[in-house]
Amino acid sequence: MKPLPVSPLAPTRKQTLPPIAGCRMAAREAGVRYKGRRDVLLMAFDPGTTVAGVLTRNQMPGAPIDWCRAHLPAGTARGLVVNAGNANVFTGAHGAMACAETAKAAAAALGCDPSEILLASTGVIGEPMRYERIVEHLPAAKAELTEDAWETAAATIMTTDTFAKTASRTANIRGVPVTINGIAKGSGMIAPDMATMLSFVVTDAALPAPVLKALLTRGVNRSFNAVTVDSDQSTSDTVLLFATGKGETHVTVDGPGDPALRDFRTKLEDLLHDLAMQVVRDGEGASKLVRIAVTGAASERAAKRIAMVIADSPLVKTAIAGEDANWGRIVMAVGKSGQKADRDRLAISIGGVEVARDGVRVEGYDEAPVTAHMKGREIDIEVDVGVGRGRATVWTCDLTHGYIDINADYRS
Amino acid sequence: MKPLPVSPLAPTRKQTLPPIAGCRMAAREAGVRYKGRRDVLLMAFDPGTTVAGVLTRNQMPGAPIDWCRAHLPAGTARGLVVNAGNANVFTGAHGAMACAETAKAAAAALGCDPSEILLASTGVIGEPMRYERIVEHLPAAKAELTEDAWETAAATIMTTDTFAKTASRTANIRGVPVTINGIAKGSGMIAPDMATMLSFVVTDAALPAPVLKALLTRGVNRSFNAVTVDSDQSTSDTVLLFATGKGETHVTVDGPGDPALRDFRTKLEDLLHDLAMQVVRDGEGASKLVRIAVTGAASERAAKRIAMVIADSPLVKTAIAGEDANWGRIVMAVGKSGQKADRDRLAISIGGVEVARDGVRVEGYDEAPVTAHMKGREIDIEVDVGVGRGRATVWTCDLTHGYIDINADYRS
Repeated sequence: MKPLPVSPLAPTRKQTLPPIAGCRMAAREAGVRYKGRRDVLLMAFDPGTTVAGVLTRNQMPGAPIDWCRAHLPAGTARGLVVNAGNANVFTGAHGAMACAETAKAAAAALGCDPSEILLASTGVIGEPMRYERIVEHLPAAKAELTEDAWETAAATIMTTDTFAKTASRTANIRGVPVTINGIAKGSGMIAPDMATMLSFVVTDAALPAPVLKALLTRGVNRSFNAVTVDSDQSTSDTVLLFATGKGETHVTVDGPGDPALRDFRTKLEDLLHDLAMQVVRDGEGASKLVRIAVTGAASERAAKRIAMVIADSPLVKTAIAGEDANWGRIVMAVGKSGQKADRDRLAISIGGVEVARDGVRVEGYDEAPVTAHMKGREIDIEVDVGVGRGRATVWTCDLTHGYIDINADYRS
Repeated sequence: MKPLPVSPLAPTRKQTLPPIAGCRMAAREAGVRYKGRRDVLLMAFDPGTTVAGVLTRNQMPGAPIDWCRAHLPAGTARGLVVNAGNANVFTGAHGAMACAETAKAAAAALGCDPSEILLASTGVIGEPMRYERIVEHLPAAKAELTEDAWETAAATIMTTDTFAKTASRTANIRGVPVTINGIAKGSGMIAPDMATMLSFVVTDAALPAPVLKALLTRGVNRSFNAVTVDSDQSTSDTVLLFATGKGETHVTVDGPGDPALRDFRTKLEDLLHDLAMQVVRDGEGASKLVRIAVTGAASERAAKRIAMVIADSPLVKTAIAGEDANWGRIVMAVGKSGQKADRDRLAISIGGVEVARDGVRVEGYDEAPVTAHMKGREIDIEVDVGVGRGRATVWTCDLTHGYIDINADYRS
């Protein structure tokens, strides 16, 4: 298919990613599926690097997910191999072998054990993985490793993405500055619990794997697990957080709740949120970024469920694409969520203007600002369901002709 | 918006609906919302008519749903008023009053109690119901009642439908022939548990309301509740089954399980299935009718859930629109269903050709018939998830540019 135009929602400013001590990377054109572009990323970590991950809950996971699930518990990593073009999903014993062979080759190049190599793949499902093409490029990739290829790394893992997704933050732990860099990809099969979404985050802080795991899980729930493009959940979603411990000073922390980690936690969550928003902004065919905030639900969980049902409703998403403030469809979506909600206390605001209250339309509300808001790039919807104090916010995009163009064409 | 072209999946042959003794109808142009077309239907039933209904489970039901829920338990009916253009949903106390006034006026025209009038509305949500327009047409409608306006009745209740939906069957109960006629509307917000889908079925058999209720519930589960267009669930879904008892002979039955009802049950289920298929064939923007049969699930319920998740997946639906046998997306959808399934025993057939088995692609399967099948109007997908004996079949349509055209434009 033709190259897609860059999403109109793409961030206008690029973030610069500084080097992270103890982390190097290289990308190669291995031709796994795409031609004329880099499609394999090798990341190398210094000894002592800790790692934690969050993986898809899809019950038909790809072979790389099985591999990560087996090796993440050790909590250490020396390398990561990612390819775009073939997801190595539904590939049976051959897929598992492809993982083992790739890890073995990467381990040989980096001088470590295969169990210290993590793997991720994105692309077409059900086709045998041409892992030989990856393996044969790993020695050259090893020779090209550099601390300064973050942009290239982010571009290498793209599939239908229209822009590379990167983010960087500086935090401090007990006065010591540390850096956090992250890259991500993903634009379809994006839904709660990790859709085809890959993200790799690296910090030079020294943090034990269980601390990383706790921080990452919390951060992912409020970022990647709070976005949806099309309700479809990928078989390959992977978010990994690496800590090289090669920052200026080693600092000891008591656990994820240590007050010394407050700034790090905030900055990490901010970075994850930033990357997740970039994923939604690159949602297939997206022309509008939509924020849906639900309040007054029976619990936070109920609020998130209601918000997700609104976000995933094809009728709501097409109305937004049509710039129609059709809040009746929001009422419908709340009602189909299966969560407790009081029809006769329901309130809805669009762009800050209350259009419905106590179960009926607000008589004579000013339509002009609502209409103007619907024509903008960022749509804001607030719903109070009138039964409790649970609240949650999720982000999605509209459903346009572009989504159909991409997905009736692209085999993913 | 411009009139929509008739769905390419519309049935090529119209069914003729004979009169049903004890049931008359009339339709009027009341201008509730549409201009230049009939939009209000009055049906009148002779005294002694029994009734049962199945209503939406959406928790933001319209006022007519509240009305029917209150009055259906009595099990008798003398009239039905249906309008298209305004769903009378999310209309608060005014909506309830609109129902009461409409029922009162219909009861006055037909000489019965308002509680014997049932109501249904379809159309836009959240706008005050101009019930006066309906009420003022009821006396004239009463004067025009006829046994021979089934086609007109079906056309009157249409919204974005592109063809009127009718079906008729003849059954016999203990050797006595009876007729069953049905009409339906619905083309968006179609999902399990009754999406904006209205259907009214009338028979001249004499059957007690509890028997009707049991037969209808069973029939709906295998017809209207086994179809989905867009996963959205309407606030107004209503299926009503009326029995006038005006057929040739009265026959006593012991209950819904009475063997004397076997033929009636079969024919009723066949009719409901026929109407449900017409609804899917008129799915907004539909270009292909898709049958999804799941076997090998842990239970029938699990099988239906898996089939529905496949049917509702935007990625599966767009692939079908693109005539791409992209079964990897089916794997993804099975995995996101949350139901038990064995990745390494999963099998998928498309158009009768097995393309995946034991968790991997079938090596060297013949792609030509699969490609040809995908170009057809009716797509057949079979999935065995390899864990049990549960099975279920659901029907859906593809997701095309037409769906977006209709729903970014039409305020429903």
